[in-house]
Amino acid sequence: MKPFPLNKAFTFLEPGPVILVSTAGRDKPNVMTLSWTMVLDFTPRFAFMTGPWNYSYQALVKTRECVIALPTAGMAKTVVSIGACSGAEVNKFEKFKLTPLEAEYVKAPLIKECYANIECRIVEYIKRHSIFILDAAAAWVDEKHQKKPFFHAVGDGRFIVDGEKINHRKIMLEKLPEGV
Amino acid sequence: MKPFPLNKAFTFLEPGPVILVSTAGRDKPNVMTLSWTMVLDFTPRFAFMTGPWNYSYQALVKTRECVIALPTAGMAKTVVSIGACSGAEVNKFEKFKLTPLEAEYVKAPLIKECYANIECRIVEYIKRHSIFILDAAAAWVDEKHQKKPFFHAVGDGRFIVDGEKINHRKIMLEKLPEGV
Repeated sequence: MKPFPLNKAFTFLEPGPVILVSTAGRDKPNVMTLSWTMVLDFTPRFAFMTGPWNYSYQALVKTRECVIALPTAGMAKTVVSIGACSGAEVNKFEKFKLTPLEAEYVKAPLIKECYANIECRIVEYIKRHSIFILDAAAAWVDEKHQKKPFFHAVGDGRFIVDGEKINHRKIMLEKLPEGV
Repeated sequence: MKPFPLNKAFTFLEPGPVILVSTAGRDKPNVMTLSWTMVLDFTPRFAFMTGPWNYSYQALVKTRECVIALPTAGMAKTVVSIGACSGAEVNKFEKFKLTPLEAEYVKAPLIKECYANIECRIVEYIKRHSIFILDAAAAWVDEKHQKKPFFHAVGDGRFIVDGEKINHRKIMLEKLPEGV
């Protein structure tokens, strides 16, 4: 995986794709599927929503670290299946044939099969709304997946694959942060 | 516009599309473009990120109400242009030929040209992260746009139009709330 400029890493999450979140554990790493995410800043800072009903919650709270990984649409069935079982019962990296790779700043693993991986530190957990606030420390991409589409959850069991790209950069140039 | 079941309204935002947010004003309504949004609950409860640097912020804080409207991909150029100017200088409903329609529970207008409109009440503003928390009061759809794709912001001036749909409902059936 190649380093990816941190100031552009928000562009992975801004479109609202389904993501994987890996966490470190005492014996083994774990991974969950998330769709309720948001960009909070270009630096980049992110938010996602989860709570004690997810097995990963304990690892997030204890380690205050995770990796956000961006799966391609070709991985959709695997990613949905990851979300349909619990790390309390299953070694998900083994079951779903995911390869954990060592990260640089956090103990949670990068996921080799994904296009992008963002190492994150948890800044805060807003308990009353179940919102985790995260700052990214490093971002990585595997360029062989670069042209592949990502996918989005509708929330009712259907998913939407990325289609056509349109460019309106000229209209919003003044709104873009420097270097993006 | 037809009423849309409130318990399914989260499915409009979960895919992460670009949205419009309308607000009521003393003289005229205003509208802004947002992409940093998140679902927080099925009830539905949403979050979006904005702050005092946006003209709409004052109206959001003062009225504690807004309408989230879902534009189709065919409106992309208009929607990006709405985001590139300020309601402080422009009557955006007039300039962009949007038609404000009376909502049922809030003073902010529905936007006739959009596929879906969700009337929202602001529950809280988390100042240190610039996060608005919103509860929906009613949802509406204009079925003539039903089959049209929505679009997502990459964050660098490019946008992604919805492509192919895939169905993994069987895998995640246990995770879906009743009636969705």
